[in-house]
Amino acid sequence: MLVRFAGLGLGAATLTTVAAASGNTNADVLTSSNDVSSFMAEPVTPLSTLVKDKDDMKVKMEMLIMKVQADFCRALENEEDPSKKFIVDRWTRAEGGGGVTCVIQNGKTFEKAGVNVSVVHGILPVDAVRQMKARGKELIGKELPFFAAGISSVIHPSNPHVPTVHFNYRYFEVTQEKGEKMWWFGGGTDLTPYYLVEEDVRHFHSTLKKACDQHDAGYYPKFKKWCDEYFLVSHRNECRGVGGIFFDDFEMHSQEDCFKFVKSCAESVIPSYVPLVKKHRNDPYTSAERDWQLLRRGRYVEFNLVYDRGTKFGLHTPGARIESILMSLPVHAKWEYMHSPSDGTPEAKLTEILKNPKEWI
Amino acid sequence: MLVRFAGLGLGAATLTTVAAASGNTNADVLTSSNDVSSFMAEPVTPLSTLVKDKDDMKVKMEMLIMKVQADFCRALENEEDPSKKFIVDRWTRAEGGGGVTCVIQNGKTFEKAGVNVSVVHGILPVDAVRQMKARGKELIGKELPFFAAGISSVIHPSNPHVPTVHFNYRYFEVTQEKGEKMWWFGGGTDLTPYYLVEEDVRHFHSTLKKACDQHDAGYYPKFKKWCDEYFLVSHRNECRGVGGIFFDDFEMHSQEDCFKFVKSCAESVIPSYVPLVKKHRNDPYTSAERDWQLLRRGRYVEFNLVYDRGTKFGLHTPGARIESILMSLPVHAKWEYMHSPSDGTPEAKLTEILKNPKEWI
Repeated sequence: MLVRFAGLGLGAATLTTVAAASGNTNADVLTSSNDVSSFMAEPVTPLSTLVKDKDDMKVKMEMLIMKVQADFCRALENEEDPSKKFIVDRWTRAEGGGGVTCVIQNGKTFEKAGVNVSVVHGILPVDAVRQMKARGKELIGKELPFFAAGISSVIHPSNPHVPTVHFNYRYFEVTQEKGEKMWWFGGGTDLTPYYLVEEDVRHFHSTLKKACDQHDAGYYPKFKKWCDEYFLVSHRNECRGVGGIFFDDFEMHSQEDCFKFVKSCAESVIPSYVPLVKKHRNDPYTSAERDWQLLRRGRYVEFNLVYDRGTKFGLHTPGARIESILMSLPVHAKWEYMHSPSDGTPEAKLTEILKNPKEWI
Repeated sequence: MLVRFAGLGLGAATLTTVAAASGNTNADVLTSSNDVSSFMAEPVTPLSTLVKDKDDMKVKMEMLIMKVQADFCRALENEEDPSKKFIVDRWTRAEGGGGVTCVIQNGKTFEKAGVNVSVVHGILPVDAVRQMKARGKELIGKELPFFAAGISSVIHPSNPHVPTVHFNYRYFEVTQEKGEKMWWFGGGTDLTPYYLVEEDVRHFHSTLKKACDQHDAGYYPKFKKWCDEYFLVSHRNECRGVGGIFFDDFEMHSQEDCFKFVKSCAESVIPSYVPLVKKHRNDPYTSAERDWQLLRRGRYVEFNLVYDRGTKFGLHTPGARIESILMSLPVHAKWEYMHSPSDGTPEAKLTEILKNPKEWI
């Protein structure tokens, strides 16, 4: 059986050998349950390991994020000019692991769309590991073996009436000095509109809430609040967008239950966001509206470079793939000294909401 | 005598009273030695204090940076469309002090030119004070009274053949728990071209070297190296530009001698940079060259938001004037996934130099 990948320049044929070497059974297991053949590229971990350790959370998470990446990229391509497809870069990290970065740039619908999977492992200084957790649970040891698998995506549409979305779901394992293993999940999905359409924001939040409610009615209110607090451009005292959900250090249930929750969240990205793209991607807009979008993108850059923990962690991690981390930055951004929208304008209405986050549902 | 300011909306007449109240002598002293009337706005410190404490380093530094600001703004206005003048915002800081921010935006020659003076004082947590110093000389106390006066400027020209310049000169005083006063100076001037004209870079460095050599032949080599090391975009392993000079914790001579050195440096900004503006501001350029300029500005934003100590300190200082800190960001910036200039192009030549800083003189 030939496992074929949609990615460019990946030497898809190489996997044939692996599949053949490990026998039909392995390939069958993977293709039937996870549809490996539809992934954007060959997974980071060798197929033989993925088959052998299929019940290991590391493998389950890698398979999940590879699938979410493929599904999301295809859903976005459906909204894009048919001639414009994701470019797919499969990369390896010298220190251990690698990733698959998918990017559309200067498309008709998407000025920049980046969907990145990374599956990395190795040894990290305890301080670096500590940065991966929101709250400092004590970690014992100087240098700790770690594993991290995550999907991260930022979509900057061309049309200012289509909001930007960001999501990130990740799984960590750290082995402490005496061999004690710790694991946790983190993630979230949040929306950054340039113009406020309350109905759209309610749709977005409702979809996330539905995903959360399947697991615990307390999750949505808690993670909605956390999201508003996390995506705050402190120096301007305004939120980056209209929020969504955000959580970290998620480890309070069985590993399997935690995974199921993360899976529900990740699978809610498409239904929460793609309808908004469909609805607005052909809206007419003025150059003043485009300008406002670029100014807001400047604020997006400020958040990502000054505050975002993932970005900071990435920029300071040896061997990190900078282009995959900074693909979150928009193609175009703008800063104007003392810019402030006039009272009563749609721009002022958005600013007001960013300064005073509200409940949407 | 009426002391008149060029600034907009500052209520220049208010100073008449101060001058009158403190008598002609005060006003005479200031106007004769420092030409207060040519400043962009009324200094931050009341005129009466400036007169009374004219030998205090705090006052000397404030007078110097007000003058440097005015001289530099006028020199830039000479290169700009006559209808485009600096807007001048004089602001106060609730916690103590204030500043004067001068900005040209969307000019013919200057896409964004910001020249900011700030003179602030108050109480700061020891950790914040520590951030103001490059190297951690021990500071004793929990909350320390501080004074900081500085000028800071970034000029982003419209034409990609005119380099961006940045300079910053500052003076700090901190009083430790037991009343012991510490003071130090810091500063630097550095150039960020989009296209390399070696002759221009040599002119720039030679001018700075001349200013340094008046004081100590060891300064230029030392501070040139420090500049290359400081303005490094670490995650890309490239320098922000072609350097210049940079120093901090400058306190090894008498206060007066240190001040004289800083004065020479600050006064070398105009002769080092303005000739390059004159030379290239009307150079023809292509849209591809403009695009390259915007991509390099993206890197400028990366440095300023991720690494620059002044920016970080500002963003985390209570009551800081955010718009004055972030005026260093360009109007337009751009990011492209995996952008890399083709071999043998002028863009590749610049990139090569940024990755391997060299001696220019």
